[in-house]
Amino acid sequence: MTGTGNKVVTVAVDAMGGDYAPQEIVKGAIEGARREGIGIVLVGREDAIQKEVERYGISGLPIRVRHASDVILDGEPPAMALRHKPDASILVATQLVRKGEADALVSMGPTGAVMVSAIVTLGTLEGLRRPTVGGDLLGFVPDTVIFDAGANVDCNPRELLNFVAMGCVYAKKMLHIANPTVALLSNGAEEGKGNNLVKGAYQLLKKSKLNFIGNIEGHDLPAGKANVVICDGFTGNVLIKFCEGLSRSIIERLRVTLDKLLSKTDIDAVCKDLFSLTNVVDVRGGGLVYGINGLVWTGHGHSKAPQVAESMHQVKLAVQSNLVDALKLELTKIQRLVGGG
Amino acid sequence: MTGTGNKVVTVAVDAMGGDYAPQEIVKGAIEGARREGIGIVLVGREDAIQKEVERYGISGLPIRVRHASDVILDGEPPAMALRHKPDASILVATQLVRKGEADALVSMGPTGAVMVSAIVTLGTLEGLRRPTVGGDLLGFVPDTVIFDAGANVDCNPRELLNFVAMGCVYAKKMLHIANPTVALLSNGAEEGKGNNLVKGAYQLLKKSKLNFIGNIEGHDLPAGKANVVICDGFTGNVLIKFCEGLSRSIIERLRVTLDKLLSKTDIDAVCKDLFSLTNVVDVRGGGLVYGINGLVWTGHGHSKAPQVAESMHQVKLAVQSNLVDALKLELTKIQRLVGGG
Repeated sequence: MTGTGNKVVTVAVDAMGGDYAPQEIVKGAIEGARREGIGIVLVGREDAIQKEVERYGISGLPIRVRHASDVILDGEPPAMALRHKPDASILVATQLVRKGEADALVSMGPTGAVMVSAIVTLGTLEGLRRPTVGGDLLGFVPDTVIFDAGANVDCNPRELLNFVAMGCVYAKKMLHIANPTVALLSNGAEEGKGNNLVKGAYQLLKKSKLNFIGNIEGHDLPAGKANVVICDGFTGNVLIKFCEGLSRSIIERLRVTLDKLLSKTDIDAVCKDLFSLTNVVDVRGGGLVYGINGLVWTGHGHSKAPQVAESMHQVKLAVQSNLVDALKLELTKIQRLVGGG
Repeated sequence: MTGTGNKVVTVAVDAMGGDYAPQEIVKGAIEGARREGIGIVLVGREDAIQKEVERYGISGLPIRVRHASDVILDGEPPAMALRHKPDASILVATQLVRKGEADALVSMGPTGAVMVSAIVTLGTLEGLRRPTVGGDLLGFVPDTVIFDAGANVDCNPRELLNFVAMGCVYAKKMLHIANPTVALLSNGAEEGKGNNLVKGAYQLLKKSKLNFIGNIEGHDLPAGKANVVICDGFTGNVLIKFCEGLSRSIIERLRVTLDKLLSKTDIDAVCKDLFSLTNVVDVRGGGLVYGINGLVWTGHGHSKAPQVAESMHQVKLAVQSNLVDALKLELTKIQRLVGGG
């Protein structure tokens, strides 16, 4: 089932969002569009974008520019900023998705602004309080994903089930795992271990007939013991940031201990390898937003052209696999399985 | 203030607890006693212990054996096992502390049994629901401790304050940090970030006049941004186990990437260094239990003589610094500071 068939995928790109906008955004988007065979609409100040576009030969490519006069800056309170800047690039780009002129949105602007723009313009999927972020955690275990990675800090057990739906759709559609195993991240493996949230979700998942393998512990994560690892967004956020920080400390230490033993080139290669395995989100430059009635990619502010191009690849896959429709189905199914509305 | 003055510190050792009991326990305890100049009472089956003791020249040393006929095995439900085995080595050893015949208890037996034995025999400190474990997290940052590391999975804000008291006493007494900085582990640095628990504790700590520096994030932990890092035991447990698992994966990967570049001896040294920096609890073999009306060390079941000897060192320091009395004072002080009873 590929809903878009052979239709060219079109991505609305917030050309003004990010620390290196518009230069690196335009460069990466064009690079990605060329590589992936997709169309792009570059949204933002026309003169600034046009100046960048002219550096690259784009004649014949499905690339166009859509003017938007305003920009949301880092640090602006998102909801208020969007209200006062109706012609902000992120809003105009999101509206292109709502109107069907684009299949997906990519922005390296402030995550809060991307989220609010997506929520108010496209809406959240039925039954969800707010969208979720999640995805790969470690390069060591490419078949393990974690949800929620930071969006929902206080959750109830039913909300964890929504994360299960999101994780399973991601694992099936993007990683091609037919019947992903699902586990709850907990402080012990046995049933009955966990905080109240995990205990509640355990009981719901037990009767869900999903491929639920129970609780896993912190050390099971880097061992890839489950495909879809579920936790609240507070735990997920702390874990992912701790992972990044720890790997940074380890790499710093390695540079010292290897200093007298290896050449600088070899040390760099060893450290780069470890960095890419432990900073997946950083290397990829961002991630999909789940639970929005439309496809949205929110990237790091410090993304440069390679990350922007990679985002084109990811959203193309997501569009072609009908990720949003699949998620709608899965959310309904999972809530029904546990006796929900 | 050293309440014990020049009195010889005496440690009650559960000689039957642990995977390598009594051989490694007896060996390590005697080694530690000799090195630290402390007395020990080896508790357990007299014949088995005596056989081990005879391997080492202990004449003139303050080492004695106290018979106890039973042993609590791994996997036995602690509370029930202790009821049915009143002559279990862990119980008899704990009673020596209560009766003042020993200043501290060390056991490498099942943690659950050690905890229950300590709670029923010595009692918890006033205002505490249950004891807590905590301490160093990473060798990279020897001046950073984390509380709770896994004992209290569902907490309220006031309980986090008790962890602050424990962390501050540990930092002052064991690490000699005069005025430790305190931070809440959260999903964002700003006030207002965090789950409901963190938000509640933030408000209490703000008015505590402690050296509270606010929220820190996951990546701030390995950077040593605070001396005392506070979180609920669920988060703490997941984090510590994730840290161990991740470092294991990184070391495995290093063995592969360094294989063609370095000698096996050099690779071993590099990996051992990283292991010891990221598996502090494992290397030390256990930790103190906080919140018990008496000094208790619970060690890993797989501890061998070096870890047992290290525990003698740690409990000696804790006894000599009057850790339990200091904790009683700090718990009262902190609850009063925030307007508690």
